Amino acid sequence: MARIPRHRRLVLPLLCLLFQGATSLLFAIFVRYNHETDAALWHWGNHSNVDNEFYFRYPSFQDVHVMVFVGFGFLMVFLQRYGFSSVGFTFLVATFTLQWATLLQGFLHSFHGGHIHIGVESLINADFCAGAVLISFGAVLGKTGPAQLLLMALLEAVLFSVNEFILLSLLGVRDAGGSMTIHTFGAYFGLFLSRVLYRSQLEKSRHRQTSVYNSDLFAMIGTIFLWVFWPSFNSAPTALGDGQHRTVVNTYYSLTASTLSTFALSALVSGDGRLDMVHIQNAALAGGVVVGTASEMMLTPFGALAAGFLAGTVSTLGYKFFTPILESRFKLQDTCGVHNLHGMPGLLGAILGVLVAALATHEAYGDGESRGPAPA
Amino acid sequence: MARIPRHRRLVLPLLCLLFQGATSLLFAIFVRYNHETDAALWHWGNHSNVDNEFYFRYPSFQDVHVMVFVGFGFLMVFLQRYGFSSVGFTFLVATFTLQWATLLQGFLHSFHGGHIHIGVESLINADFCAGAVLISFGAVLGKTGPAQLLLMALLEAVLFSVNEFILLSLLGVRDAGGSMTIHTFGAYFGLFLSRVLYRSQLEKSRHRQTSVYNSDLFAMIGTIFLWVFWPSFNSAPTALGDGQHRTVVNTYYSLTASTLSTFALSALVSGDGRLDMVHIQNAALAGGVVVGTASEMMLTPFGALAAGFLAGTVSTLGYKFFTPILESRFKLQDTCGVHNLHGMPGLLGAILGVLVAALATHEAYGDGESRGPAPA
Amino acid sequence: MARIPRHRRLVLPLLCLLFQGATSLLFAIFVRYNHETDAALWHWGNHSNVDNEFYFRYPSFQDVHVMVFVGFGFLMVFLQRYGFSSVGFTFLVATFTLQWATLLQGFLHSFHGGHIHIGVESLINADFCAGAVLISFGAVLGKTGPAQLLLMALLEAVLFSVNEFILLSLLGVRDAGGSMTIHTFGAYFGLFLSRVLYRSQLEKSRHRQTSVYNSDLFAMIGTIFLWVFWPSFNSAPTALGDGQHRTVVNTYYSLTASTLSTFALSALVSGDGRLDMVHIQNAALAGGVVVGTASEMMLTPFGALAAGFLAGTVSTLGYKFFTPILESRFKLQDTCGVHNLHGMPGLLGAILGVLVAALATHEAYGDGESRGPAPA
Repeated sequence: MARIPRHRRLVLPLLCLLFQGATSLLFAIFVRYNHETDAALWHWGNHSNVDNEFYFRYPSFQDVHVMVFVGFGFLMVFLQRYGFSSVGFTFLVATFTLQWATLLQGFLHSFHGGHIHIGVESLINADFCAGAVLISFGAVLGKTGPAQLLLMALLEAVLFSVNEFILLSLLGVRDAGGSMTIHTFGAYFGLFLSRVLYRSQLEKSRHRQTSVYNSDLFAMIGTIFLWVFWPSFNSAPTALGDGQHRTVVNTYYSLTASTLSTFALSALVSGDGRLDMVHIQNAALAGGVVVGTASEMMLTPFGALAAGFLAGTVSTLGYKFFTPILESRFKLQDTCGVHNLHGMPGLLGAILGVLVAALATHEAYGDGESRGPAPA
Repeated sequence: MARIPRHRRLVLPLLCLLFQGATSLLFAIFVRYNHETDAALWHWGNHSNVDNEFYFRYPSFQDVHVMVFVGFGFLMVFLQRYGFSSVGFTFLVATFTLQWATLLQGFLHSFHGGHIHIGVESLINADFCAGAVLISFGAVLGKTGPAQLLLMALLEAVLFSVNEFILLSLLGVRDAGGSMTIHTFGAYFGLFLSRVLYRSQLEKSRHRQTSVYNSDLFAMIGTIFLWVFWPSFNSAPTALGDGQHRTVVNTYYSLTASTLSTFALSALVSGDGRLDMVHIQNAALAGGVVVGTASEMMLTPFGALAAGFLAGTVSTLGYKFFTPILESRFKLQDTCGVHNLHGMPGLLGAILGVLVAALATHEAYGDGESRGPAPA
Repeated sequence: MARIPRHRRLVLPLLCLLFQGATSLLFAIFVRYNHETDAALWHWGNHSNVDNEFYFRYPSFQDVHVMVFVGFGFLMVFLQRYGFSSVGFTFLVATFTLQWATLLQGFLHSFHGGHIHIGVESLINADFCAGAVLISFGAVLGKTGPAQLLLMALLEAVLFSVNEFILLSLLGVRDAGGSMTIHTFGAYFGLFLSRVLYRSQLEKSRHRQTSVYNSDLFAMIGTIFLWVFWPSFNSAPTALGDGQHRTVVNTYYSLTASTLSTFALSALVSGDGRLDMVHIQNAALAGGVVVGTASEMMLTPFGALAAGFLAGTVSTLGYKFFTPILESRFKLQDTCGVHNLHGMPGLLGAILGVLVAALATHEAYGDGESRGPAPA
């Protein structure tokens, strides 16, 4: 980490203390256990001693938790020079976001009787918001210090929560895996910030943006954990039962297709037939993003493969051809290529969701169609 | 990754596209959601809103998924020179196998009404097949490129599925953790391939087969994740209830014993009393392989310890004495020593399964004996 | 690993074989499956086909298992020179402890009819004991070989089990996450050992105690997995239902606060405003330790934040100011600083537990207060 000028040495610690003080105060006033977490409110269900959602959501929650901290954290280690920063700052920024998002989402979604009521769903949603913030971090990696990232998280979590509230609660959109709310939002927020932070002298240090053997292997730890647990990411907040089951199956197959198309396209566009590790580390994951909205629906297994294949293709081509144009024409330095992994596949995912929802028939869903939206 | 001659640059991308095209077509025609994944077919059970198997198999499935991609992927990183290749190619080959195995196993096990019906069990079984392919990869690591590995997976998945069908469905053998179907099959298929691919000039590059500090630490990531999640590997497809619980307990203790015997034997045979990292990385896992068949049975906790101890011993001695003989006498270059970790312990596991099944008494199993075989 | 003198080359292998022989014999005589693991004793519950605890504890157990082997193993890799040793010896020592603790805890907690009866709870408790041994290992890392560590585990597991029995069974203390039984005990046992092993010439090799880029990234793998899964560590043995749910929520928020205070304090006390990776790797986890006892109780979300913040602060200040004093004044070389991560936060956690229990009102717990203690 770079040398810090004397007059700025107190910025990070004071910001941490201020933020922690503020969220603590708000927690003390507003945050309470919900009826499944509170000893006085809770009781075993009627049918069996496991009749509550906690046990069906907890394994998925832990997978999401691993994705946010291990997955995003190590995925960004691929830049040798920013290895420490990416893991360390990810840890700090994601952590603060968990507290802050709990408050914001609580006010919008579970505020009644003057209190926010929290349980495992709150933890899942807070992790999702942290995921969006880390996606944005990927666009500005190497340009910002931890204090700026905390300010980014402060602002982004507000916009994220308002955007999510408008889409899910006001417009009634279903977006369990967050194609729109997490990936598209996070990517374009980050790109906007990257444009604002653009400084020409940074271009001169572009040679620092290289990866080496070990940093690429560390990054693959991030990639593989994201890839393996993405079915849990998309299914964590869906309706229990067939909805969650179907989301897992769709996401799993979509990811296999995006991986195959990424390997194919990466070798095809490289000129010398060799695979580009950056493509493998990132574009292979596009299949998880693209079915974020539609994986809960009756997408069909073939639909999952087709969507994943398309996402992997678009994402790899984006890394090869679009990112350099973004930088040279639009002065947009997208360090981790989040536009390719989250931006475009997220937009495709939104379109896919609209298509599948429009094509939904009573035959395909049976009585299931009327079971209503999943808990947010 | 090595330089690729001009005329072979299109082989990998075209193979990926061809394979993905073919499996997509077959998915479109044949693959459908099963009754637990389909919105129209699914309904909550009679007793509570969780009365379906998905929730009891999903955590184990995710553990298996981590083992296949993180475990096997990083275990093979121990060769510094092939670090990228082992993680990258593992990712590609395992991914293709997931699609292909879904089709093959679907036709053999869940084909009715003209369609294959898939759910979480399909994902578990596809991951198992990918595990077998990665075991074979371990025998030929460093000799094959990604295109050859895809062809290997194409062929091996067919033979794997037929072998599994004969053993489990025709002969009625129980082999939940796959001592026979996964480990023994994968190891000997890989060794056969390694013999076929033998070229004398490869011997000259044996000095490349060295590990260094960092690559050994990366490999330990693979080892530890395999070790920790092996109880889920063996228990993922067993009968729910006591079967799954017992499998977890047996595998856990078997692994502790194989680890202790590996440390003991490794120090004993080294000459200078020092531990060999290759033994620790591999032979310590033999306890998981050896109880693949028997861990579901009433093996007893002591039986698990004894089996694990034997497997760790045989495996370590294999690395020390048998692998060099295989190479010098039989021209079999077993890069990762899969014969020691999967071949011999798998055979021992099959024998152990026969023994424990033969010794099964009504007293030991109670009414449980008649509950019938586990879902494949 | 260092060169081993000829006359000591047989110590480790013979110790491993002796220990494995002894535990195997005791397993054969005493250890049996419990009623949930035994085919003859087990039957589905009355309400649904999932009416047993195994499925509610297994995901948490696997998370704990990852923490012990991946988390503690890689956390100690931060010393470049001891990278192999810390991962390899962790593996060996933790593994032996699992067998040995099963016997000790079995005799004290589940011995009836002449037999120890084991199931998934036994695995969780054995992993907890291994966690305590690894905490002690952190205090003496670099001073001991594997044989000495096995002897340490042999002795420590006995004292651990007796201490746990006195606290939980005789005194009726509730300590699900082990603030007292695991963290405080493990830390002070290790510190005691470190004092006993103190030799002045070791001081000369202190320059070996440096970390480098890669070893710090490996250590962050340990940190992040510990951080992510700590809610499972504290909740694995709690009462099912709201108790487990509340423990997860409290631990999650406590960890966010200890992370923020660690970043704040680390930058504040560094002199040049830069973060100290050792603080981030360790003190950020203190929030999990401090709520080990109280997280099951009605701590309130604000209480969790306050406790975590205090723990992170105390822990970071300990690394900065207390560890050097311990070494210079008391000849206590605490290699990993376990006094800061486990010792002081564990003591604070015990005090917090007493406070929260004393403040418990009927209003806060409702009928839940009388549901009795959690299974150990």
